Amino acid sequence: MELEFISISLFSSGSRPRRVLIVFAHPDKRSFNGALLQTAIHSLESKGCQVEVSDLHQQNFDPRDNISDVKLDTDNDVAFNYSIESGKAYRSGKLSEERNAEIDKVKRADLVVFQFPLYWSAAPAILKGWMDKVLIDGFAADFEKGKILDKGLMKDKTAVLSITTGGSRATLSSFGLFGDINVLLWPLQYGTLRMCGFNVLRPQLSCETLFVSEDKRKEYLASWESRLCSIFDEEPLSFPSVNEFDTKETWTLTEESREKYSKSGTIPSVVHHMGTLDVGQTFEIKKTGD
Amino acid sequence: MELEFISISLFSSGSRPRRVLIVFAHPDKRSFNGALLQTAIHSLESKGCQVEVSDLHQQNFDPRDNISDVKLDTDNDVAFNYSIESGKAYRSGKLSEERNAEIDKVKRADLVVFQFPLYWSAAPAILKGWMDKVLIDGFAADFEKGKILDKGLMKDKTAVLSITTGGSRATLSSFGLFGDINVLLWPLQYGTLRMCGFNVLRPQLSCETLFVSEDKRKEYLASWESRLCSIFDEEPLSFPSVNEFDTKETWTLTEESREKYSKSGTIPSVVHHMGTLDVGQTFEIKKTGD
Repeated sequence: MELEFISISLFSSGSRPRRVLIVFAHPDKRSFNGALLQTAIHSLESKGCQVEVSDLHQQNFDPRDNISDVKLDTDNDVAFNYSIESGKAYRSGKLSEERNAEIDKVKRADLVVFQFPLYWSAAPAILKGWMDKVLIDGFAADFEKGKILDKGLMKDKTAVLSITTGGSRATLSSFGLFGDINVLLWPLQYGTLRMCGFNVLRPQLSCETLFVSEDKRKEYLASWESRLCSIFDEEPLSFPSVNEFDTKETWTLTEESREKYSKSGTIPSVVHHMGTLDVGQTFEIKKTGD
Repeated sequence: MELEFISISLFSSGSRPRRVLIVFAHPDKRSFNGALLQTAIHSLESKGCQVEVSDLHQQNFDPRDNISDVKLDTDNDVAFNYSIESGKAYRSGKLSEERNAEIDKVKRADLVVFQFPLYWSAAPAILKGWMDKVLIDGFAADFEKGKILDKGLMKDKTAVLSITTGGSRATLSSFGLFGDINVLLWPLQYGTLRMCGFNVLRPQLSCETLFVSEDKRKEYLASWESRLCSIFDEEPLSFPSVNEFDTKETWTLTEESREKYSKSGTIPSVVHHMGTLDVGQTFEIKKTGD
């Protein structure tokens, strides 16, 4: 009974169950991405979480930054700026239904899981568009007010990327063909999610899913299922605090912070991250050999 | 007369004029991105280049990896894989008209210019989708045959990113809020364009375009125009050769290459790049102060 209570408590936030949004960006649910999605739903629901899914292809989500996407207040003489107009539309309740629906899902979520295949070392366009259209300045972050990073508007939420790749784990190391996965994901994990304040967990990688054995695929699913059982206990990745930047003027790291990083034998921004990140077993980067 | 001859020769490849494709990814041509586009067309055409433009919004380019996008040979029991099916469709002439048209433009081009605003430290979804849908394995690269990097199928072509940003140049340095621009662009410049073989030139950055003075904007346009006058003379960014990797097995850098990079005081992959890149005046990264 006591064990059960502890287990459940990790999956509730005070008196209510934890809520999870899974953003699914694969055109076919029969894929391994689909299997990872089903595993996540099952694992989380069995722990008492409330799970919502944004199946971007099924929703026919349009990832483009089209002018027609926001109801403009500006006249026709002013060049359209998607970010600014999206912010205005959000503040004045003039966003499209599609975007409002996604924003509402994010508002409800304690954890957002992104499930997608890596295309050209980045998220597929349909998922990049979700980032562009849902994480609006004013909703997810507020650059003008310095509400970014640890002060970002999403700071009470957690995010994790669950990625399938064609390449092996070795090709995603600092010596590998594609380079360090932390570098590949820097624009997404830091430049987007952390910038909005999300606590970003280490990514879940299922590598070479097309080429590995059926047993290995089952192992990937089991590993994901098992990780999700204690995901609310995980320490997020470490990123600089907004207080480490000169927020008055340059938005570069203060002299003090530079010294701190310099003493730790690493240099900012992404590089300090690469060197000091607690990367877990699957992220071990051997300095020599394979 | 002699000077004119020299000038023209840079813009011709043997007996024919140089051909340029500009991929334009902004929803409004009246924007500063539009001004940069017009400047590029004018500058290149005045040098005798043949310029084509892919105006992705005007073309209503759909960036999604939809199943309907390729005519499938596979039966319904096999999960759809966009990259594999795209490759098959390319080889068997079953790609959509939209994708074939873009591929034909790339085939004709000596230089491909990408003109876009940076959204969340990366390309807008409509441009990411162009990468996903046009740079098909079998056309732009061939991973199975090792036709990547300096052996990539695009190796006789050059590419350059012309980017507008909301943040200042300082925020895009290694001490800046967003981190080193070379890191932000690594998935795009190395993971995508260089992987296909493109000779990638240093990016053209027009920073804080919404906030700077009219004079500064004019300066940006003049700088771009001037750079384009000798763009075919530029040295591309330096990336590892495919021969530096163990192409038989692990696709990680060989021991010999690791030693070489280690001696140069840098570490692969992106990091060696950050340290040794000839970044030009606008890319000077000061180690202390601003």
